[in-house]
Order: sequence, then structure tokens, then C-alpha cells
Amino acid sequence: MIANRSLGLLTDLYELTMAYAYWKSGRHTQEAVFHLYFRSNPFGSGYTIAAGLDTAISYLNEFRFDDSDIEYLATLTGSGGKKLFERKFLKDLRGMKLTCDIDAIPEGEVVFPNEPLMRITGPILETQLLETALLNCLNFQSLIATKAARVCQSAKGEPVLEFGMRRAQGVEGSVYAARGAYIGGCAGTSNTLAGKLFGIPVKGTHAHSWVMSFDTEEEAFMAYARALPHNTTFLVDTYDTLEGIDHAITAGKWLKKNGHTMSGIRLDSGDLAYLSKVARKKLDKAGLTDAKIVASNELDEHLIRSLKEQGAKIAVWGVGTKLTTCYDQPALGGVYKVSAIREPGGEWSDTLKISDQTAKISHPGIIQVRRFYNKKENIADAIFDIRYPPQSGCTIMHPTDPLRAKSISAKTKHRDLLVPVFRRGKGVYRSPKIAAIRQSTIDNLKHFHAGLKRFENPHSYPVGFEQTYLGRKKELTLRIRKNHERAAHH
Amino acid sequence: MIANRSLGLLTDLYELTMAYAYWKSGRHTQEAVFHLYFRSNPFGSGYTIAAGLDTAISYLNEFRFDDSDIEYLATLTGSGGKKLFERKFLKDLRGMKLTCDIDAIPEGEVVFPNEPLMRITGPILETQLLETALLNCLNFQSLIATKAARVCQSAKGEPVLEFGMRRAQGVEGSVYAARGAYIGGCAGTSNTLAGKLFGIPVKGTHAHSWVMSFDTEEEAFMAYARALPHNTTFLVDTYDTLEGIDHAITAGKWLKKNGHTMSGIRLDSGDLAYLSKVARKKLDKAGLTDAKIVASNELDEHLIRSLKEQGAKIAVWGVGTKLTTCYDQPALGGVYKVSAIREPGGEWSDTLKISDQTAKISHPGIIQVRRFYNKKENIADAIFDIRYPPQSGCTIMHPTDPLRAKSISAKTKHRDLLVPVFRRGKGVYRSPKIAAIRQSTIDNLKHFHAGLKRFENPHSYPVGFEQTYLGRKKELTLRIRKNHERAAHH
Repeated sequence: MIANRSLGLLTDLYELTMAYAYWKSGRHTQEAVFHLYFRSNPFGSGYTIAAGLDTAISYLNEFRFDDSDIEYLATLTGSGGKKLFERKFLKDLRGMKLTCDIDAIPEGEVVFPNEPLMRITGPILETQLLETALLNCLNFQSLIATKAARVCQSAKGEPVLEFGMRRAQGVEGSVYAARGAYIGGCAGTSNTLAGKLFGIPVKGTHAHSWVMSFDTEEEAFMAYARALPHNTTFLVDTYDTLEGIDHAITAGKWLKKNGHTMSGIRLDSGDLAYLSKVARKKLDKAGLTDAKIVASNELDEHLIRSLKEQGAKIAVWGVGTKLTTCYDQPALGGVYKVSAIREPGGEWSDTLKISDQTAKISHPGIIQVRRFYNKKENIADAIFDIRYPPQSGCTIMHPTDPLRAKSISAKTKHRDLLVPVFRRGKGVYRSPKIAAIRQSTIDNLKHFHAGLKRFENPHSYPVGFEQTYLGRKKELTLRIRKNHERAAHH
Repeated sequence: MIANRSLGLLTDLYELTMAYAYWKSGRHTQEAVFHLYFRSNPFGSGYTIAAGLDTAISYLNEFRFDDSDIEYLATLTGSGGKKLFERKFLKDLRGMKLTCDIDAIPEGEVVFPNEPLMRITGPILETQLLETALLNCLNFQSLIATKAARVCQSAKGEPVLEFGMRRAQGVEGSVYAARGAYIGGCAGTSNTLAGKLFGIPVKGTHAHSWVMSFDTEEEAFMAYARALPHNTTFLVDTYDTLEGIDHAITAGKWLKKNGHTMSGIRLDSGDLAYLSKVARKKLDKAGLTDAKIVASNELDEHLIRSLKEQGAKIAVWGVGTKLTTCYDQPALGGVYKVSAIREPGGEWSDTLKISDQTAKISHPGIIQVRRFYNKKENIADAIFDIRYPPQSGCTIMHPTDPLRAKSISAKTKHRDLLVPVFRRGKGVYRSPKIAAIRQSTIDNLKHFHAGLKRFENPHSYPVGFEQTYLGRKKELTLRIRKNHERAAHH
């Protein structure tokens, strides 16, 4: 719906004013390393699912400023009506091509706070301009993939369908919600455009309006059955649910007689536990044992768990608003922090943002995440600097508690999570098909201890900073604090 | 970012399967009236701000199915791998042009539960297909405009800037968040693309990374001041806020000496009340009385109110995640319900979805909203059927409490809120410029009693059903309930 054909302006203005100031100060070719990471799992979850990388790659591939973008930027003014940007800078933007290196954790990986989902290395002007859009892509899709994984976990392998397009935040945002939900484990979506764009299975039959446009519900179901005999999930609660089930059975028997199979019924209101049990009995008694009961109505992981505990006879879960908008926590607080700076070709100098809150101190250096595992499951993740890779085994330290350490033996198997995605501005990574990403989410989650996946006080998976990394970070923190103490008292 | 050039598929699949079933049953030319409305104000607010209409109009103008959409639909299958749609139907979709009438409440109007934001009248196949995207457009932007109005109310006329793009739900969704926030009263956004597309003022200076890319903060501020002397709000909390304020003052004095004015400083962490007071004193003492203090860090209407109560010296409010994602209620539950059906050219037959919950019974007929007002303020809204317009004055009844009525004298001034937007598929409404819409929000809110705008237990503005309308609705409800009782017991 947005007519703009170029994506350079998809950014906070301050990225552009900084880019200009770097350029104006002759510092735009200075090289920087940025990491994108989050500080806590959403929804009180024990884990987060990485998603949004392929969308970020599309953005990066299409990143440029066209003439109309440049003309727009030329109109912007600061105080006193003075132009913000010089023409020469805007001309450089117009011709700009990405040259940076990007590494990222593939979609469908299980990730944890402080682990960089992405590392961006290159001229600071470029790496700065990419901040807002990259955060947006990874924050939202990782959030919804995590929510979907939780919902699917409650459904215990039964299909969950994403139904929330009408309540999504923005028309095209709904499309990425559907994508993230599928990556998190959903079986399909109602969002037809998402189906076309990403190859996600699409599902849907009819609404109350179908029933209301006929004189009687029975007539409505029969007309639908005749029109679409291969896609017959009847919504039974327009007038009276129990009566609706009977009308669906009438249509189901007609379908059966004519060589078709009724897909099922959908319950969208009322006591879903009770109604599903009654419906199951009625359907079975009528010989419609293959007809599935679909339920919807403000469902989330907690309601689904409760319905299962009550023995509800629900086989398919339609989840809308609560999933699509991540209702109980609609944002993941991912950040994008500079961690090293150098003159082109020079030595990297590590940078750090300090804070009175230990958890808010940024992570210096050039970071990779190493996941250690045995045959059964993952054991721990080590965050380390690629310039100082652990030689054999390693000791990891808790991010904030200096007394908690864990030693990993030299023989433990491991894999590094960040993989090359762009090199000198060229894409070098090909995303798997979305169905494969979804399957990898399901498989990856199996390799974590069950305690991690419970909703209440989930087990905290050991993620630590490699010991020498934390030593260097401590030293840098103390050095910066000392400088500022001096400055504050001089 | 979405390459798709046509918008027909921006819909739940069930709208398409219903469209097909209407077509297959020969009922697709049957005419229907749908209304789009919501059942409760978001955030416990006493009101809602209508927004998203212009986005809906863009969608309607671009609504069509292209060849690739048709090819995609042709691949869809139901049970047993059977094709969902016949080729002949898809060919009809390919050639489809909108012919419906649409009426809507203009953006920036203050609206209430049960009032239709939009009425869609036309062939049922069309009116059905538009459901999902229209809901999406109006739900989200009305939600965020309402949130923005509340935040702006707390700021008491001081500028509020929308800063949340990085946490928004979807890259392009952020653009509509910026639009809705501006309509709700924000003074600008950090979202550069939204600035270009809608003419919203854009704001921004620099991030922590700017400071961290220099050896010292002082050097960083001076370099920024030299590069962009007309846009100088220094972010002062990278290392130590009090020290940062001093460094900003150094840059501010340099700016002053060179004939420029320092715009201000930004506080992004810590005790904003305390720090803003210290900063104000320091700035004033240095003669930088024009320098404004901007604050950000997870602000919302409640935190802003609290900061104002504490006497914080903050002049500009940067509001991100909590506004952009409508954090405390990320969805408005707008619905789209059919209310009348007829054969082309025939008599309208009213329809109703019944429910055990009175508030969930849909509204039959063809509805308009009449707002009654006197010189000082708005008095009440009447929801009525345009086929039975109140002749002079009117009595309105509370939607759920039959004992609450209000009589409005014949001489009371009034205006009807829904205006023609499309006639026979052609646009007949031109949206005001966005700055005018924003101003209308501010002006419209002034015409409501202050009690409506308080956060705790806001006054409930009288919105009622015109007496004869409610009588007809009651009759229809009883008739349908009786039919279903008969059916249930036969």
C-alpha cells in the first residue's frame, strides 16, 4: 500500500542526521561494529525464537535512496528554517550502495537475552542508517514467532491457525505477523496475501455474515456445502450453537451421501469446553467422526492449556488478536549498539555505553555465540569475541552475577550461531524455505530441557560470557567509569 | 517492502471462499449493508479518535486482483487436494471493479462504542471481500490516534514526538503508527518515510552511537554542533548524565558565540524529574534559556502526568514503544457486521446476529449517527436508521439499560457524522490535509465535557439508540429468538 519504491527513508531521522554529521566531520568512512540484541525474553518465556532475517535481507537488498527521497530530504529544515542537509551529501546518498558485512543467527534458532541476533560491520555511515529498519524486522517477527511457539506448545502438536489480520497493527504488518507465526510453529494463516508471498498454507471457510445472508442457517450451510464441498468447516454460533451443530450435521450427512467429507465445525463463542464435548458426541453419533472441531474466540496459550485440562474436544485452534498483536507484550525491546570502531584498515577500538544498571551496559567487541551440546540436548551458550576464540572448552560467567560460572569440557561438541549473510554488501546467505524454517523451530526446541518451556518460572538456560571476554569488558568498564569520575570532579 | 502490486489478496481466505460460495449459489449480486464498529473504548478511555479512513480509501482505490493473484488462488486446494475455486469465478475476480457505496466518519472525529465508523452498501460479494482490510485500517489507526490523544493530553499542549519505529509491528506498520499518532495530536515523528508520505514533521538528532564513536563526549557534541548547528539536541546520558549536560553546555556556548541557538538536550534514562530540574538550572545559568529539555524512556500518558506532577522541567516528550505499539492494549476490537440484505432493487430485510450477551447482539438496519450540541459542548449522540430519521428532536435509549433514556428537544442543533465516501465505486470524498485532521482532533476534543477526558472512571458520554430504532431492533431480536426456540424444541 506504500507507493514508495525505495527503502532508504525507512529510518528514524536521527540516523540520517548522524550520517550527515559523520560525513560533514569526515568520519563517515570510519568503520564500526554494531550488534543487535535484546535484554529479556518476552511473555516471561524461557526462550525466544529468532525470526525476521529474510525480511531484513529483502530490506537490505532494496536499500537505496531514489530521486524523490533526495528531494524530500532537501526540503527538511532545522531551527530558523535553515536546511538540514547539504546538496553534496544528498548526492552521495543517492549514489550510495551497501558495502558492509552482516552476520546473523538464522531464523528458527532458539535464542536468549544478550545474544546478538545480528552483527553489522562496515563504514559507520552505512551501519548507522540500517539501525531502525533492522530492529523493526527482527524485533517484531522474533516476538511473534516466540508467541506462536508458546501457543503451539499448549496445543501439543494440534494445528494452530493464525487468524488475526483484522486486528493487526497495519495492513502490511499483518503479513509479517503471519510469517512470524508460521515460523513459530503455526500450521497456517487466514492471511491470503501472506499465503501468496511466503507459501504459508491458508485456511478459511465462512463467517456469520454468510449465515445471516440466508433465511435460515440450515439453508446457509447447505448452500455452502454445495458450493465448496471440499472446504466445509461450518461456523455454528450465529444464532444458537447447539442448533447450529445440528444444522452442520444435516449438511455433513448430505456431504457424506454425495461422496464428500465434512471438514468440521467452528465454535467462536460460549463455553468452548462444554460445547466441544457436546459437538463431538453429536458428530460421532451422526457418523461424522472425521469432522474436526475448530475453536476460536480470544484464545492464547493459557486459555488453550485450560481448555485442554478441561478435556475439550478441540482439534484445531484458531488464534487471532492475542497472537497477531502479541497482546500481553506487543514489543520486543531489541537494541542496536556500537561495540567497536576503527579507522579503515586500522585496529579495532572497543566501545561501551555505561549505565548504573549492570544489565544496561552494552557489550564491547566483535561477538559470536557458541552453543555447546551433547547427544541429548543443548548444555550452554558462550558469548565470546571472535578475536579471542576459546581454544578448547571454556568457562562461561553469568552476565550479572560474578559468582556464577560454568566450565565446559574441551571435548564438548559445539556450533557457532551467527553465520555470514552479507559480505562487502553482497548477499552470501540463502534463507531456507519457510516450511523448513518452521520445522527447524520445532526441532530446535526439542533440544532444550523441558523446564525451559514451561510457562511458570521457566528454567533459565545457561548463557554466559566467556571468561576472558568478561575480563576485558570489566577492564573497559572500569577504565571508562574512572575517566568519567575524573571528569565529574575536575 | 511487499512486492505485490495489487491488494485483492489482502484479506482473510474466508472472505474469498464466501465470495466464491455467493457466486456459486447465484447470490453474489444480492445487496448487503455492513457496518464497521467497535464495542468498547480502548485503554479505559472515555472516547476514541476515528482514524485510518484515508488509508482505507487508498486501499479501496487500489483494490483489484492481478494475474499473479489469480494464479495463486488457482493453486489453492481443499480436502482431498481438490481445487477450491473454479476458473470462471477467478476470471470474474480478475475483471472485478468496486461498485459499492461507502459512508464513513471523517478522521479526527471523537467516536464511541456502537457508532459505525463506516457503512458499506453493495453487492454482497464485494462488501464481503473488503471486510478484513477495512477493519485492519480503521482498527489500528483509531487505536493509536486515541493513545496519542491521551498522551498529548498529559503533556498539556507541550509537543509529543512519536519515536517508536524500531519497536513497531512491521516495517510499514510503523508508517501507519506515525500517521495515527499525528492525527491524535503528536507534533511529529522520527519516522522519515512517514514524513515523506504524509507530510508529518520529522524530528531527530543523534543516538548514543554518535557519542561512542568519538574519544570523548565533548568532542562528539562539538563535532555534531559544527556539522548541524541548526539541529542540536544533545543526548546527554551515554556515560554520565550530569557530566553530559556540562558537555552540552560547552557546545551550546560555542553555538551561541557563532550565532546559532542550541535546540536543547535529551534525557533518555535515570530520574527524569530530578535530572530535568538540574539540567534546567544549569542551562539557564549558562544563559541557554532557549535550550529545551526533551525526555524519552518508556514514556506513556501516566508517566508524563507523574513527571508533570513532580514539576519536571521537560518541554518536549519523545514517546516510543508505549505509543507506537499501544502497549497496554495493542488492538481495538472493531467488527464488521451485516445488517440488511436485499435482492437488487428490492426491499431491505434487516439481519441480526443474536447472542446471550446483550452487548454482542449486532445492530440491524442502515445506520447513521447524529451528534447533538449546544454552543458550549456536545450533548449526546443518537444512533438511528436513515429510513426512519427522527423528525424533530428525539429520545435516545441506553444501548443495554432499557431504563435509561434521554430526550433531546426539537430545537437542539445537530450534525450527522457519517459522510459519503464512495458512490457506485467512485470516490466522492477528499480527505483534508493531515495537519487539518490533526487540528480537528484537538478542536473536536474541546467540545466534550472535561470528565470524558480524565483517565480514571471517565464520564460516559450519552450515546443512545433512537427510540423507534431500538423498538424495531427489539422486535427483530424477539422474532429471531422465537424462531430458534421453536427450532431447538421441534
